[in-house]
Amino acid sequence: MLVQTLKGFRDFLPGIARKRQYVINTLKDVFESYGFEPLETPSLEYEEILSGKYGQEGDKLMYRFKDNGGRNVAMRYDQTVPLARVVAQYQNELPLPFKRYQIQPVWRAENTQRGRYREFIQSDIDTVGTTSLLADAEIIDCVLTCVLALGFNDVMLFINDRKNFTGVDPKFINSIDKIEKIGRQGVIEELEKKGLTKKEAQELLHSIESKDISEDTKKIFDYLKPMLTKGLTIEYKPTLARGLDYYTGSIFEIVTTGSGGLSIGGGGRYDNLIGMFAGKQIPAVGFAFGFDRIIEAMDEQNLFPQELFTTQILVTVFSPELLDASIEACYKLRAEGIATELYLDPSTKVEKQLKYADQKGIPFVIVIGPEEVQKNKVMLKTLQTRTQEEVTLDKIPQLVNKATS
Amino acid sequence: MLVQTLKGFRDFLPGIARKRQYVINTLKDVFESYGFEPLETPSLEYEEILSGKYGQEGDKLMYRFKDNGGRNVAMRYDQTVPLARVVAQYQNELPLPFKRYQIQPVWRAENTQRGRYREFIQSDIDTVGTTSLLADAEIIDCVLTCVLALGFNDVMLFINDRKNFTGVDPKFINSIDKIEKIGRQGVIEELEKKGLTKKEAQELLHSIESKDISEDTKKIFDYLKPMLTKGLTIEYKPTLARGLDYYTGSIFEIVTTGSGGLSIGGGGRYDNLIGMFAGKQIPAVGFAFGFDRIIEAMDEQNLFPQELFTTQILVTVFSPELLDASIEACYKLRAEGIATELYLDPSTKVEKQLKYADQKGIPFVIVIGPEEVQKNKVMLKTLQTRTQEEVTLDKIPQLVNKATS
Repeated sequence: MLVQTLKGFRDFLPGIARKRQYVINTLKDVFESYGFEPLETPSLEYEEILSGKYGQEGDKLMYRFKDNGGRNVAMRYDQTVPLARVVAQYQNELPLPFKRYQIQPVWRAENTQRGRYREFIQSDIDTVGTTSLLADAEIIDCVLTCVLALGFNDVMLFINDRKNFTGVDPKFINSIDKIEKIGRQGVIEELEKKGLTKKEAQELLHSIESKDISEDTKKIFDYLKPMLTKGLTIEYKPTLARGLDYYTGSIFEIVTTGSGGLSIGGGGRYDNLIGMFAGKQIPAVGFAFGFDRIIEAMDEQNLFPQELFTTQILVTVFSPELLDASIEACYKLRAEGIATELYLDPSTKVEKQLKYADQKGIPFVIVIGPEEVQKNKVMLKTLQTRTQEEVTLDKIPQLVNKATS
Repeated sequence: MLVQTLKGFRDFLPGIARKRQYVINTLKDVFESYGFEPLETPSLEYEEILSGKYGQEGDKLMYRFKDNGGRNVAMRYDQTVPLARVVAQYQNELPLPFKRYQIQPVWRAENTQRGRYREFIQSDIDTVGTTSLLADAEIIDCVLTCVLALGFNDVMLFINDRKNFTGVDPKFINSIDKIEKIGRQGVIEELEKKGLTKKEAQELLHSIESKDISEDTKKIFDYLKPMLTKGLTIEYKPTLARGLDYYTGSIFEIVTTGSGGLSIGGGGRYDNLIGMFAGKQIPAVGFAFGFDRIIEAMDEQNLFPQELFTTQILVTVFSPELLDASIEACYKLRAEGIATELYLDPSTKVEKQLKYADQKGIPFVIVIGPEEVQKNKVMLKTLQTRTQEEVTLDKIPQLVNKATS
């Protein structure tokens, strides 16, 4: 038997699992500070709830099967269709506007390639039930607060109004949306391939590029003025399209300018989707972070705090007789909020215990031998510098926190 | 189309989703303080990794299907078999002992009934790679710290040694294990039905009940002595068996004594399982919390903190002209760590905005009208008492925190 994971599926060992948790917790904290509330929906839905909602491509990539009871079921493909179901199913319990966040895995049988997986986390916030542009502005404000909280300081938010494309053939919009990637010349060539003459292509692109900022976008900028005292850049970008079938109003995208213009998330207003199960129009505006992209960009820019990665202290056991002193030290350190690991085999030589700390990257080790017990002190070893000092236990939180901050 | 979830699958609307997060965060914090590290494994595995590992019953209840590439795949059924795979697959990267926690959903096509679901969270800690009984004691210590952190003060931990059952037929052990539920008489009747005479049944039960505490259990008690200064009860219980095929040494179970003896988790030592993919024996000891049981018991005992449930303050918008004052107030309150929602439609009457706060159970509302703007104050309304007072914004964190603590 091959002991392996399926292609496109990943194990997250502690180092990377901690990074993921850090991002999730940071996002949640900001979301909740704005009054967005958590929602969880099941991994499996009736297939008919999901199928036909993501286009032909979606139906092809969806994980679906017959369950043991013969029901046709499908695995969560995104979090928007389930949100639409929830809004319809609980309409009497959920006062509108309903502001929810949802951070769960979704499954898509994509062709695997760098940065594309078959199981990945989506991280969404949406405000459902109001056409107020203040909701659009709040979403933008909230996600910019998120990226600042994650430590990014080189992000730009581009904004546009999907109504700028009214009357333009979707296949042309698709090409115009690629302008960052393939350049003006590339766009014009694509438009020509799609049936326009060179002149028509140039004129179309020019007409989009020179579109005046819409009244709605102006209003959102206005709303954002008092919100944005943080020195971030928001820029009107008339060529921004982002999956247009979906959006009906504002569209926006966050790009890190540091690492070559990586998009780390986008969103917009989509007033015709959320009501699909409720049988009426329910306006909505939302944003989705590219979770794996965020991790990637934070790795590149070294934004994860160092102390995230390991237990802070390993307390060794000098000998079985002195075990109690080590256990007691663990207790006191944990009470001070320090993640503390006790070496679990009291008969192991201290040298081997130090090697274990090294292997795990634990930065500090405490040794409590007979001498230390007598003096009521402990030996604190800093592994990176190979230094040690004899201190009383109550000094340790300060020393450890100083070293990691 | 029926707009509904599959039987045995659940939506978690904000109220209950917050409870789940609270429990998860509390558990994680304690786990990490003991040096347990997070691990995530995929939702789907090759079927051959999982099948045959959970007995006939498991194979029957497993969600499995052919994926789009014709591979036989299965959904995560528990977190122990994936752990065994991880330990084999990354043996060169994971220094032993490997102490990991894992909190992810699993899927089982169970007959649904009260408290039994087809998608539910498992919450496990395991120490892999050491036979030291200090590891058993540490797991017990850690999970007791968890239940204290969750607010339980009426729990007992029962402990036994699976070796006490050496030589006893598994089907008999199964009956003895039910003694809490069906009583001594019930056990004896079951044993008779399974082929023993009344005398043999009585003697077998008596011989188990009168088993002396084993040397290993004694040692674990010894180790726990300095760890347990918290007034919790740990009791030796010779009839405790807990799914015996699995366990090879210590077994333990946590029961809340308050709500009629609800078991909220159990675990033990299982030295023959984790090595299944590595092709060698790898000792392990672990514990699994019954996540839904914990939520249920905490609900019954009213252990969830009140301030968990909503945004703390709704800032209303008196009129479109005064919107900026409301936005500014939101900013200041969020900076003080107060979850603050801005009412999103500036043209709505304040009365309707108050009603929204009522519907959502938001305890405090701020109104900033022209008078308040002029005085540089805000009107703070407490919805429950229908009282209000005019205060400066900087007083609010104190007032709000006092009210909810």
